[in-house]
Amino acid sequence: MGSTTVVGLLGATGETGTSIVNGLLEAGGLTIIALTRPSSVSKPAAVALKDRGVEIRPIDLKASQDDIVASLEGVEVLVSAIGPMEQLEQIPLATAAKTAGVKRFLPCGAMPVVPAGGIHMLRDVKEIVYNHIKTLHLPYTIVDVGWWYQIAFPPLPSGKIDYALGLPNPRLPGNGSQPNALTDLRDIGRYFAKIVVDDRTINKYVFVYNELHSPTQIFDLMEKLSGEKLDRQYDTLEDLQARIADARPKIAKDPTNFMLMVQQVSAEYLISWGIRGDNQPEYAKYLGYVTSKELYPEFKFKSFEAYLRDEVIAGKAKGVYDELRAKIVEMHKKH
Amino acid sequence: MGSTTVVGLLGATGETGTSIVNGLLEAGGLTIIALTRPSSVSKPAAVALKDRGVEIRPIDLKASQDDIVASLEGVEVLVSAIGPMEQLEQIPLATAAKTAGVKRFLPCGAMPVVPAGGIHMLRDVKEIVYNHIKTLHLPYTIVDVGWWYQIAFPPLPSGKIDYALGLPNPRLPGNGSQPNALTDLRDIGRYFAKIVVDDRTINKYVFVYNELHSPTQIFDLMEKLSGEKLDRQYDTLEDLQARIADARPKIAKDPTNFMLMVQQVSAEYLISWGIRGDNQPEYAKYLGYVTSKELYPEFKFKSFEAYLRDEVIAGKAKGVYDELRAKIVEMHKKH
Repeated sequence: MGSTTVVGLLGATGETGTSIVNGLLEAGGLTIIALTRPSSVSKPAAVALKDRGVEIRPIDLKASQDDIVASLEGVEVLVSAIGPMEQLEQIPLATAAKTAGVKRFLPCGAMPVVPAGGIHMLRDVKEIVYNHIKTLHLPYTIVDVGWWYQIAFPPLPSGKIDYALGLPNPRLPGNGSQPNALTDLRDIGRYFAKIVVDDRTINKYVFVYNELHSPTQIFDLMEKLSGEKLDRQYDTLEDLQARIADARPKIAKDPTNFMLMVQQVSAEYLISWGIRGDNQPEYAKYLGYVTSKELYPEFKFKSFEAYLRDEVIAGKAKGVYDELRAKIVEMHKKH
Repeated sequence: MGSTTVVGLLGATGETGTSIVNGLLEAGGLTIIALTRPSSVSKPAAVALKDRGVEIRPIDLKASQDDIVASLEGVEVLVSAIGPMEQLEQIPLATAAKTAGVKRFLPCGAMPVVPAGGIHMLRDVKEIVYNHIKTLHLPYTIVDVGWWYQIAFPPLPSGKIDYALGLPNPRLPGNGSQPNALTDLRDIGRYFAKIVVDDRTINKYVFVYNELHSPTQIFDLMEKLSGEKLDRQYDTLEDLQARIADARPKIAKDPTNFMLMVQQVSAEYLISWGIRGDNQPEYAKYLGYVTSKELYPEFKFKSFEAYLRDEVIAGKAKGVYDELRAKIVEMHKKH
């Protein structure tokens, strides 16, 4: 382990984690350790990573500090792409990382830009983790990634792109005019590969994104590219607040219910990026982020229009959140 | 109001606020409005400010938003040096500042560097205010100021400097070796006068300080300057945690009891700067602050040693917290 940087990654088989592994492998020159729940080390997804040169190492975040520290042996850069319900498991992880001498921890950001303080449930949980890291004096980089291309377009009336819908988003938030910073999910790992070896990003918040598009612009683009006419319905602030108000007391009674969390969080996202306009580079800079446009102006990416045209409408896109999709379609029908 | 910047200041007659007024008046070129509780506008302290060219304007932070907005008319830069028990009144103030078109809000920081997240009661209250400001997209500057010269030295056995003791600090925290960033209280306003007109500090955390001294160095310095021999007793982490553990349940029952808050907060400070070593420029930078040394390398100040020699020991120093001192001496005796 001396010549290459050793990157430990949690959540390597999730949507974001997969992009990160791909980006790190593509960049080369890194030793990658997938830190994996003991019960998952033999699963096909882990085996597939091993075949690609990734070390699979068990880690149990509910074990003792000594055990977690031992699991981090040799890890120089620790990247977390842990699931939304497991965010607080990063607290013992960060403490162990400090003891283990990890040089930099990238906790699970991987969100659009959202301020802390009551706007977004998941963001506020992450804030607890970020604050804990800072009390440790542990070097960090917090990376937020905008809104994925893969979940940023509405269905077509013909149903021909239903195969590619991630989180269905059939309505426009607010008046549809807020620019929203979009990133191709597949580029996230390519950005991470740059960030983890970039000293300029130590102890910084980094906002990576490809392009800005408002919901109205996206609907216009979809009509132009598909030749279909889209019905435009709008979610008002009150609509979205009502969904949150419906979910909140139910979550209080049933805090591990993932679909309730999705209900609240999806409405909070629509308020944040769609109405408040938080997920924009100027606001990110206001909050103290440095952006990928400043750090990596040479970064090449497929445009959102090309993605829609050559992949989604051409029938070649890969969907995301396959397991979730049916449940979310059902949830949207209820509202 | 066009040619000069209009600065509105809350808490203009407190220790920090007095320094800020003095600094702003000394700098010149600013219109200063002391935003004052309606019940205090006729008090001698307010009248004295009026005589120095400061507009005294009533503001009631418990009034309606419309009334608070009206009180902020014409204010371009809003500076808060509000008391420790009134921090959350800055929430409606910030909301009104956004509506009123205030160009920049400097909420009440004015602490040493302490991370948010359970280290320090007062810091965590301030975090709620900071988060609220950010959800408003309101331009801000958060200024922390280190530990004051005026409360950074121990008593002498002879009692000859008791007249000048602010918060008595007779013991050394931890092993006494953590450097602590010190600032002359009187310089805080001179730093503010630079910051409020400096575009580089918009949407930034700024850490101002003069010099670094560890408690051991300060005891050594006091012995050298006074010729007296100091007894060195140390507060361990456990001692300090016990004081906090004693205060916390009492505060829960009696949340407006100022002396209980002082008990908890003073122990939390000693842990933070004295044992953890938070109040240092490198840690400030890690948290995202820009420091006064970077911004204003030409800033002239009296050294801490000169302050001790020519003022404190020479019998010419002005104490701080006059009303509090006796109560705190009493509190320290209990532990």
